[in-house]
Amino acid sequence: MMQTQIGVLPLKLDGKRLLLVDQRKLPGALEYFDASAFADLCFAIKDMVVRGAPSIGVCAAFGLALEAGRRADLYALSSSSSRSSSTSGSGASSVNQFIQEMNQAAAVLNATRPTAVNLRWGIERIMNTINRVLDGSTSASTAAVCAAAADAAYADAQRILDEHIESNKAIGAFGSELLPQSCNVITHCNAGSLATCGWGTALGVIRSAFFAGKQVAVYVDETRPRNQGANLTMWELTEDKIPATLVCDNMSGHIMLTKKIDCIVVGADRIALNGDTANKIGTYNLAVLAHYHNVPFYIAAPISTFDATIADGSHIPIEERNPEEVLHQGGQAITVPGARAYNPAFDVTPAELITAIITDRGVLRAPYGKSITAALADNFALTEIK
Amino acid sequence: MMQTQIGVLPLKLDGKRLLLVDQRKLPGALEYFDASAFADLCFAIKDMVVRGAPSIGVCAAFGLALEAGRRADLYALSSSSSRSSSTSGSGASSVNQFIQEMNQAAAVLNATRPTAVNLRWGIERIMNTINRVLDGSTSASTAAVCAAAADAAYADAQRILDEHIESNKAIGAFGSELLPQSCNVITHCNAGSLATCGWGTALGVIRSAFFAGKQVAVYVDETRPRNQGANLTMWELTEDKIPATLVCDNMSGHIMLTKKIDCIVVGADRIALNGDTANKIGTYNLAVLAHYHNVPFYIAAPISTFDATIADGSHIPIEERNPEEVLHQGGQAITVPGARAYNPAFDVTPAELITAIITDRGVLRAPYGKSITAALADNFALTEIK
Repeated sequence: MMQTQIGVLPLKLDGKRLLLVDQRKLPGALEYFDASAFADLCFAIKDMVVRGAPSIGVCAAFGLALEAGRRADLYALSSSSSRSSSTSGSGASSVNQFIQEMNQAAAVLNATRPTAVNLRWGIERIMNTINRVLDGSTSASTAAVCAAAADAAYADAQRILDEHIESNKAIGAFGSELLPQSCNVITHCNAGSLATCGWGTALGVIRSAFFAGKQVAVYVDETRPRNQGANLTMWELTEDKIPATLVCDNMSGHIMLTKKIDCIVVGADRIALNGDTANKIGTYNLAVLAHYHNVPFYIAAPISTFDATIADGSHIPIEERNPEEVLHQGGQAITVPGARAYNPAFDVTPAELITAIITDRGVLRAPYGKSITAALADNFALTEIK
Repeated sequence: MMQTQIGVLPLKLDGKRLLLVDQRKLPGALEYFDASAFADLCFAIKDMVVRGAPSIGVCAAFGLALEAGRRADLYALSSSSSRSSSTSGSGASSVNQFIQEMNQAAAVLNATRPTAVNLRWGIERIMNTINRVLDGSTSASTAAVCAAAADAAYADAQRILDEHIESNKAIGAFGSELLPQSCNVITHCNAGSLATCGWGTALGVIRSAFFAGKQVAVYVDETRPRNQGANLTMWELTEDKIPATLVCDNMSGHIMLTKKIDCIVVGADRIALNGDTANKIGTYNLAVLAHYHNVPFYIAAPISTFDATIADGSHIPIEERNPEEVLHQGGQAITVPGARAYNPAFDVTPAELITAIITDRGVLRAPYGKSITAALADNFALTEIK
C-alpha cells in the first residue's frame, strides 16, 4: 500500500528551458508549455497554464533565475565583444543596471496574479539571493558578478522546489493523523501535485492517509468556473486509484446532510497572521456549511503561504478574473449575449471557521495569532523577506 | 414602468396539440417541442424539455386531458364502426376499461419525476375530474361518457393554467412588499414564467417589485449541472430589462459578505406541512449561507406546491439524475473517462432556515405548522386530492 511517488510535477527543467504542464488541457491531454521566455512565463501564470499558489511560487522562482541568467549572458557577451565600448560602463553601474532590470522583471511577474502570496514569496526570495551575491561580491567583472548571482538564484529555485516536495510530505504526514481510519472527505479546487509541486497539500493529506491504509473516499467539487476539481483533482485521484466522486459546487450542503462527511480539506493561497485564509472561490461557502453541520474544516498549506505582513484577511486582494470564464462552459456561451457576470477568483474564510491549519511545521489551532507566530518564528525564508 | 405581460409561457395549445418551449435549447433558440403524443410528453418531462414544478403540473394536466380525449375518440370510433362487435362490450365495462387505461397513463406520467409535488397534484386533479364525470354520468353510451370526461378534463387543465397565471400574480404582489425600495437579490435556478406558467414565483416577486418601481438588482446562480439560472433566468430577466449578474453557485457566500444582499428568493418543488422545502439542488447551500449572514431567505410558491400528506421534508423523495449531467459541460467531458459523479437534482431546506413562504394566499411565517394549515384550509383542490 506504500507509495512514494509524488505525482506529476507541474514543471520540468531542461537546462535553460522551463516547461510547464499545461493545466488548461488536462485531463484530456498531458502537454508541456514552454515558459522559458520571461514573457511566456508571465502569460502562463496569468492564463493559468500553471496555477495553485505553491506551484506559482516555484515557477516564478525558476523564471526569475532564468531571466537573471539570460541577462548575465548578455553582459558576458557585451563585455567580451566590446571591451572598450562605453556602453559596458563601470562595473558598479552595470551591476546597478542589472539589479534595476531584475527589479523590473520581478515587478512584472508579481503583477500577474494578486491573491496568492507564494508568488511574491518566491520572487522576494530569489531577489534576496541575487542581492546577497551582488552585495557580497568583490569581483571587478560585471559579467562574472551577474553570472554568479544568476547561478545562485537558480540553485535557490531548485532548493525551493526541493523544499516544497519535502514540505508537502510533512503536511501529508501531519494531516493524515487527523483523518479517521475510514472517512468521507470533501475537497475543493486542486491542491495536489499540480498545484503544489510535490505530494500535494490538501491532496497530500488525502494521499498520505490513503497510502497509510486508511479507507478514504473523496467528494470533489467541480470548482466552477475553471473546473480545477473536475479537470485536475479527479485526474490526480484517479491516477492514484483513490475513490473519488465528482459533484457540483452547489451540492455540498446536501452531501453533508445526507452522507457521513468526516471532514473538509482544502489548500490556501494566502493566510493572514490571524488565520484568515484566502483560497479558491467557493471555499468560504464550504467553510460556512461545514460550520453549520459541525464538520471539521481543515486548511493544508506550506509555511510559505502565510503572509506575516498582514494582520487579517481584509488585507488580501481578491483577483477578479474575466467574466467570460463564467459566461461560458466548454467553450460555449451558457447565457444571453451581452450578459453581465461577476468572477471573483478567490474568497476569504475567516479563522473562526477553520478547525485547524495543517502546515509542514505541524497542525496549528486557534488561537491562531499565537500558533501561527510560533510556527513562523524559525522560518528563515519568511524572516528574510520581511 | 407598469408591465402586465406575463412573459413566455412554457406551453402553447393548438387544438389537440400540446407544444412545449424546449427549455433545453434556451437561450440560444426559442423552439417548440411537440408533446401531443403521451409518450412524448413523458419524455419531455423526464428530459427537462419542460421543467419547473408548477409548469410540470400544468403540462401533465393538459397531457392527461389530451390522452383522455384520444381514448374517448377511439371508443367513439370502435362503437360507430362495429356496433355489434363484442369488443365494444357493455357500457359499464368499457368505462371501467377507460378508467383503468387512464389510471395506467397517470401512473406512467407520475413516475417521470419524483420530487415536485405539482406533477402528482396536476395528475390527481385531472383524474378526480374524470372520475367525477364518469361517476355522475347516466348516459348508456361509453363513447359519450368518455368524451364528456375528456372534455371536462381539458376544461379543468385550462382552469389550472388560468389559476397559475392568477396565483403567480398574487405571489408577486405579496412578495414585492417584502423587498426594500432598492435591493440586491440572489436567486437560484429558474422560478420564472417558464417554470411556473405565468408571472413567475421567485421571479414573479422580483418582477412585481421591479415594475412597481423598485430598484432591483439580481445575482443569478448559474445552477449547475443544468444551468437553468444561466440559460433561463438570465434570459427572462434580460427580456424584462431587469439588471442581472450571472455568478457561479460557489460565489454566494463571498457575495453575501462583500455585496449588500437584501434577500434570497427561490421557488419550491414541494413543501411539507412543517415548512421544509424541496427545491433545486443548491438551494440548501444558499439557505445555510443566508442564515449565517443574517440575510432573509424567502420561498415563493403557489399553494399547489404544498404536500399536505407529509409532515416534514424527510418524506420528500430526492430525484437522482444521470451522472453524465455532472460529468459534462456544454457537451464536453470535464473529467477523466470512467469517473464517478453524484447528481441529486434537489435538496431539502429545513423550515427553520426559511424567513417566510410567499404564497398566492399570503406570506406565511413560522410557526409554519400553523400558518400552512391555515392557508390550506380553504384550498378546494388540495382537499379534493387527499
